[in-house]
Amino acid sequence: MLEQRKRMMRRKRSVAERGMVPATVVRRLPRYHRFLGDLLRKNELRISSARLSQLMGVTASQIRQDLNCFGGFGQQGYGYNVRYLYEQIGELLGVNEGYRAVIVGAGNLGRALVSSHMFERRGVVRTAMFDTDESVIGRTFACVPVYNVAGLAEYVRSAHIDIGVLTTPKDAAEGEARRLAEAGIKGIWNFSNQELTLPDYPDVIIENMHMGDSLMMLLYAVKEKEDGR
Amino acid sequence: MLEQRKRMMRRKRSVAERGMVPATVVRRLPRYHRFLGDLLRKNELRISSARLSQLMGVTASQIRQDLNCFGGFGQQGYGYNVRYLYEQIGELLGVNEGYRAVIVGAGNLGRALVSSHMFERRGVVRTAMFDTDESVIGRTFACVPVYNVAGLAEYVRSAHIDIGVLTTPKDAAEGEARRLAEAGIKGIWNFSNQELTLPDYPDVIIENMHMGDSLMMLLYAVKEKEDGR
Repeated sequence: MLEQRKRMMRRKRSVAERGMVPATVVRRLPRYHRFLGDLLRKNELRISSARLSQLMGVTASQIRQDLNCFGGFGQQGYGYNVRYLYEQIGELLGVNEGYRAVIVGAGNLGRALVSSHMFERRGVVRTAMFDTDESVIGRTFACVPVYNVAGLAEYVRSAHIDIGVLTTPKDAAEGEARRLAEAGIKGIWNFSNQELTLPDYPDVIIENMHMGDSLMMLLYAVKEKEDGR
Repeated sequence: MLEQRKRMMRRKRSVAERGMVPATVVRRLPRYHRFLGDLLRKNELRISSARLSQLMGVTASQIRQDLNCFGGFGQQGYGYNVRYLYEQIGELLGVNEGYRAVIVGAGNLGRALVSSHMFERRGVVRTAMFDTDESVIGRTFACVPVYNVAGLAEYVRSAHIDIGVLTTPKDAAEGEARRLAEAGIKGIWNFSNQELTLPDYPDVIIENMHMGDSLMMLLYAVKEKEDGR
């Protein structure tokens, strides 16, 4: 009797808390997180699935299905609690884990990245940049210092860096990636346009960012429209 | 009789030439184009599907299936003609159509983009950058001049610009996008982190580039590995 009552009173853990969100849903979560963050910044604290559907251009039933993973929200007539959902999704995605990142390559792209809001919003601290160019070493961008790349491995080890952002030229990418992996990095965000695989370091997560592929998809769609297909 | 012979002699047009490559294959083509371009630059003019499979981490049967759309290549014992395939894929994707682009926003990201090889490799000419910042207007980056954004629409019209690259802050993005669309732009490559839709301009192609989403997928994978899932 008592056992049964206890079981009933035990708060039901959401699918998200049990780490069971399907991969297809996970891939859609950054976009939800982005829209929810925008709502929060506008002080909109509740939103109906109908309105979120309209904003995001996704069916309301898809939204309900995706967000149901996060537990009992979206009651009829109330809508979603924006902040709660934003925080839950963020937690699942590893936002605010306090990850520490370095940026390898202090050229224009490295400088654009170091001063973008992307990292802050996701709770990632940028501690340093690295470059080979003597005229850049010693400078700071967005309060982040640029060091000589010769000290990269030692720095990653001693400063407990989790994430390496690679913005080097293509032909330097693999060498720097190996250096990072060797020094114990957990993840590499690769902008070098050199697709990286590190079979010797299966634990290092690599996210290849191919901006050129995105440009090609745009060109293709423009051409297709012109051709009247 | 004659008709039949004519039909037989008529060169069989490939699926690609007939504009019938499935969308799922099209999405994979930029990656093929990238790898084939790397091979060309290394002067490798032939490649077997087995070797390409190994390089790209895709099954050889997938490769054959994808590349068959481009006609009779990949004969046994010969392999693929790298240059031909590179050019065919490029043509399908709208590379070397001579598209003309402007970059709106001459901050670090705009400067990184204007000086990257991405555009040249895809035959896209950057003719100008635009900004609101008086201290940047009049300067040049990678030989591309920065003009006052007040003149953007007029410039897009008179210089027959096809592509607008948006690197403005988030809150300026929609206004500039409308200005571009109004002036007759064909495609917008949007880095502003403000997801754009222009329902009044259904013919304008928009490619949203969400770098932050890619960062979140990296953080998620790192966290998942740490959690030992």
